[in-house]
Amino acid sequence: MRAPRLRTRKLDLQNGRVDLSHGAGGRAMAQLIDEIFREAFDNPMLDQGNDQAAFDVPAGRMVMSTDGYVISPLFFPGGDIGSLAVHGTINDIAMAGARPLHLAASYIIEEGFPLADLQRIAGSMGCAARDAGVAIVTGDTKVVERGKGDGVFIATTGIGVVPPGLHLSGERARPGDRVIISGYIGDHGVAVMSTRRDLGFETELLSDSAALHGLVAEMARVAGSSLRLLRDPTRGGLATTLNEIAQQSGVGFLIDEGAIPVRAEVAAACELLGLDPLYVANEGKLVAIVAPDAAETLVAAMRAHPLGRDAALIGEATADEQRFVQMTTSFGGGRIADWLMGEQLPRIC
Amino acid sequence: MRAPRLRTRKLDLQNGRVDLSHGAGGRAMAQLIDEIFREAFDNPMLDQGNDQAAFDVPAGRMVMSTDGYVISPLFFPGGDIGSLAVHGTINDIAMAGARPLHLAASYIIEEGFPLADLQRIAGSMGCAARDAGVAIVTGDTKVVERGKGDGVFIATTGIGVVPPGLHLSGERARPGDRVIISGYIGDHGVAVMSTRRDLGFETELLSDSAALHGLVAEMARVAGSSLRLLRDPTRGGLATTLNEIAQQSGVGFLIDEGAIPVRAEVAAACELLGLDPLYVANEGKLVAIVAPDAAETLVAAMRAHPLGRDAALIGEATADEQRFVQMTTSFGGGRIADWLMGEQLPRIC
Repeated sequence: MRAPRLRTRKLDLQNGRVDLSHGAGGRAMAQLIDEIFREAFDNPMLDQGNDQAAFDVPAGRMVMSTDGYVISPLFFPGGDIGSLAVHGTINDIAMAGARPLHLAASYIIEEGFPLADLQRIAGSMGCAARDAGVAIVTGDTKVVERGKGDGVFIATTGIGVVPPGLHLSGERARPGDRVIISGYIGDHGVAVMSTRRDLGFETELLSDSAALHGLVAEMARVAGSSLRLLRDPTRGGLATTLNEIAQQSGVGFLIDEGAIPVRAEVAAACELLGLDPLYVANEGKLVAIVAPDAAETLVAAMRAHPLGRDAALIGEATADEQRFVQMTTSFGGGRIADWLMGEQLPRIC
Repeated sequence: MRAPRLRTRKLDLQNGRVDLSHGAGGRAMAQLIDEIFREAFDNPMLDQGNDQAAFDVPAGRMVMSTDGYVISPLFFPGGDIGSLAVHGTINDIAMAGARPLHLAASYIIEEGFPLADLQRIAGSMGCAARDAGVAIVTGDTKVVERGKGDGVFIATTGIGVVPPGLHLSGERARPGDRVIISGYIGDHGVAVMSTRRDLGFETELLSDSAALHGLVAEMARVAGSSLRLLRDPTRGGLATTLNEIAQQSGVGFLIDEGAIPVRAEVAAACELLGLDPLYVANEGKLVAIVAPDAAETLVAAMRAHPLGRDAALIGEATADEQRFVQMTTSFGGGRIADWLMGEQLPRIC
């Protein structure tokens, strides 16, 4: 009754490509998961081979966040979709003040995608997770026909644990609170853009893609309950983030545009392309809203951390029923920095 | 200094289409989220408008699972990608014996997708979640250019809480354990297939897409620690699921093919298409492996539940170093039901 089983050959990681069988749930998929994902994400929960990961949690406040990553191109100066898909989700967890615990990764792969690129992306994702001290404990792989996707999309979901007593949320800004940005803005958007268009200038600019939970833990330690809220200015940039907070908290903002750190290369690229750095995406920066008396101490503490060394106090929240974000410019004038209208740069994350 | 803000018109949900601005992070995205997703998912955590949801959890065992949904077509007899994306993830949570707690949804939408269809999918997703007693507490929306996606993909991630004392995992099957299937197999795959190809026959077959956590809770109550493990035979079907368990537990299986419930319509469609129902996907069925002395009681309890009324004892685990899944056929013969090789039906979930 028994037939000898065919030995499956190893995946051809140099020249092979993903085909529809790699998403069909059978032996080919099991092999793809074994030889690429388990290898790259290497952890005991994933190794159990169940359709879910199980782990113990302490009682308390937990946060959950999910993000789809559709960045184009997949590889960019300073990172790739794999590292970005870890940093971005960790940052959403960290913005609640939480310590990231575990990640789940869902891959949607286009038929014909090179296995070598998939291995590189999974490897980079695994590295970013290990560097951040989190594990990718469960995942899923789907394959769509050629022309029905675009290389690889990744949806990463994270959970994290909020330290007792810490409560950060978008509605907690009060008039008089200070606004801090953790460093230079626009690096990610401009770095990605430089790979897409012929900008006509030389730049060594890298994406700022980074996991911010370490910086956040330090900020929470120093500022405690004076810290009102944190948010990472990704799509839509700093201006859109401030508008979101203004909306949620029912305040306005008055920002000193000259105090916002912008690199010369970013300013130059934006000028060339007719873009405003205030609306360009970041992937390793945060905006902090903090009670006035804790602001100076907080900025000093941030500057002592590698990911906050260019932190700057850039303005304050105002009593404003209309919830406007106002910029005072270096020429002494002023303007409203409204929400991003339309789209400045598609598929930046 | 202030400019009057343009009033945003409501989305045209009848004739409008998704464009790239709906994924750019600005005002258009905020509007899409407000008018479609918040409306459909309606819950206080989502309404907070943060990039993450926060909630309290008890100490204990937690599970996390993620799945990407790329089903084509998006609407099929008995469901759509929205309901499927809830049921599928809840089931992965439930297969660990866990009570599902919260879901996160990540949408990747192709430019040009009709807003009316998006609203219908989100509505169906919201309904399925409410019916199952879980909330979609956080989400994300990305838009890719026309021709770089295929309508809508959804990645859903869930977390759940395992009742104390319950431990279900793929490596727990022992020789002599009984194998139970909760009902008719192949309905989902054949229902979806009937929308894709001209099968040349009339069928009223619906997908079996359903959330199984209620059935699982009842099974755990009745069988307690005699219940070794559960798994839902989705992609790859029943045969592939049994092979996975055989691999993880280091056992074989001997299955009575005649005892497996297969509807006449499914058998006919499979015969017509040259498919084997054993490899066709299910979205509302589970395989249970249970200690022999608890098997009869468990089947009886399952049959008393609406989602298990056609439950059947179909075979047992065997001592087999080669980990073969053997079928005894109704003609008294036997065959090996190997892993699914290649792909039987792409994008079935």
